[in-house]
Amino acid sequence: MIQPIPRSIFFISDGTGITAETMGHSLLTQFEGVRLKQVRVPFVNTQEKAQECLAHIQAVTRQDGVRPIVLSTLVDPQLNAIINEADALCLNFFDTFIRPLEVELGVKAIHRIGRTHGDTDSNDYKQRIEAINYTLAHDDGVTNQGLAEADVILVGVSRCGKTPTSLYLAMQFGIKAANFPLIPEDFERMHLPEALTTHRSKLFGLTIQPERLHQIRSERRPNSKYAALENCRYEVREAEKMMRIAGIHWLDSSTKSIEEISTTIMQEVKLDRVTY
Amino acid sequence: MIQPIPRSIFFISDGTGITAETMGHSLLTQFEGVRLKQVRVPFVNTQEKAQECLAHIQAVTRQDGVRPIVLSTLVDPQLNAIINEADALCLNFFDTFIRPLEVELGVKAIHRIGRTHGDTDSNDYKQRIEAINYTLAHDDGVTNQGLAEADVILVGVSRCGKTPTSLYLAMQFGIKAANFPLIPEDFERMHLPEALTTHRSKLFGLTIQPERLHQIRSERRPNSKYAALENCRYEVREAEKMMRIAGIHWLDSSTKSIEEISTTIMQEVKLDRVTY
Repeated sequence: MIQPIPRSIFFISDGTGITAETMGHSLLTQFEGVRLKQVRVPFVNTQEKAQECLAHIQAVTRQDGVRPIVLSTLVDPQLNAIINEADALCLNFFDTFIRPLEVELGVKAIHRIGRTHGDTDSNDYKQRIEAINYTLAHDDGVTNQGLAEADVILVGVSRCGKTPTSLYLAMQFGIKAANFPLIPEDFERMHLPEALTTHRSKLFGLTIQPERLHQIRSERRPNSKYAALENCRYEVREAEKMMRIAGIHWLDSSTKSIEEISTTIMQEVKLDRVTY
Repeated sequence: MIQPIPRSIFFISDGTGITAETMGHSLLTQFEGVRLKQVRVPFVNTQEKAQECLAHIQAVTRQDGVRPIVLSTLVDPQLNAIINEADALCLNFFDTFIRPLEVELGVKAIHRIGRTHGDTDSNDYKQRIEAINYTLAHDDGVTNQGLAEADVILVGVSRCGKTPTSLYLAMQFGIKAANFPLIPEDFERMHLPEALTTHRSKLFGLTIQPERLHQIRSERRPNSKYAALENCRYEVREAEKMMRIAGIHWLDSSTKSIEEISTTIMQEVKLDRVTY
């Protein structure tokens, strides 16, 4: 029997709600077996919207028969006051942390809303978009042009996670990440793709357990030579040999999320994030 | 004269540090004119690494001549105790919020490390990767195949922000987002691309101020007809006309970040996030 989920958690923000959600998910990973209905309420940036949101919370409380949890990142004290009227456990991120920071920095917080994910005129933002465009244009070895501009160049066998990782690096850290597949022709020559040899210091490898690769490739092309376990074993072995000879650092992506892979690469290549 | 930045802020985590950083950046947007050296220390998941991290903080304190700020998401009380020895303002996210949640939920937190961005076996994670692959394979109208699978299909003139927005929707929310450019040939026929007409309910438009479009396109192809302000005005006017006739909702991306655009689309199309 599936357990009913009678309790709700609200992520309330005057902006996108991404900070509130990120925090909320982190907290919930610490409560095993607890499932909550997650309700995101972004752009609560006027008193009217705060009142609407309050009504929404109250309705859910009545419906659930138990008070919900409210995790908010509202910065405006008036909007906060409205939400705090809810019959709920209200946790406010800014309320909790702003005060000690004000004291420490000797500066008053501005309490201006919707700033976290909103400044599109900043150089940081422009660089981030540029990194995304760069990464897309240099996915899967489609071009040898402009590799000098790359912050990092990922290599590895097809479907080992290069593309999602490259995109995450660009999106999250503003890193220009090109990626090149290592393919059977490279293994026959036992030589890195020619275009990469002048960028040795930027290369970083991904590898994967053959069984996992077989599984991933089988979803895409079932019963192909490409997906065959035997072939996956061959490709992974040869790719690792090639990276070893070339002195390329690598990591095994088999059980790592793109966030973990990306963060590890940043550390290993000693990359600093380009944008904040 | 550029102001020196003598003070540091550490983002310390037993996992990727992404939650700590996201929170930290949100907090810092509330302190205008305050710049801090940001130091990310991920994967602090053993006592040895915590000791190393402590030594790092202490060294920075001596170097800066002022105590740093430490924002951590460590969940292990022993690791926390080590970091708390630092001569710093230590703010611990979990310490602060876990306790009230434990009381509210009547469940003990597990304090197990590195869980937030690490579960690659979950269906959620697989769906998210699938959404990224789908979105890449359906970027810029490259194929009419498989549009029935899309959660949303973005339309708009070239360079109005469709691609980064689609990728963000996939990466953050697990949304399968296809995107199609509206091009001069469509305007001449005053008709949506044929492939889209059967998916009317999934369409969402992006538009942009012609001046902004001119600026973006000029960076890419300076002095081209494509980038000319006159042409940008024409394309934007025709695209908006076409969307109006087709009854497609749209938003102006000119001053919005991809986070804001994506969150707004989720609201407008009444999409729920697919993954957490």
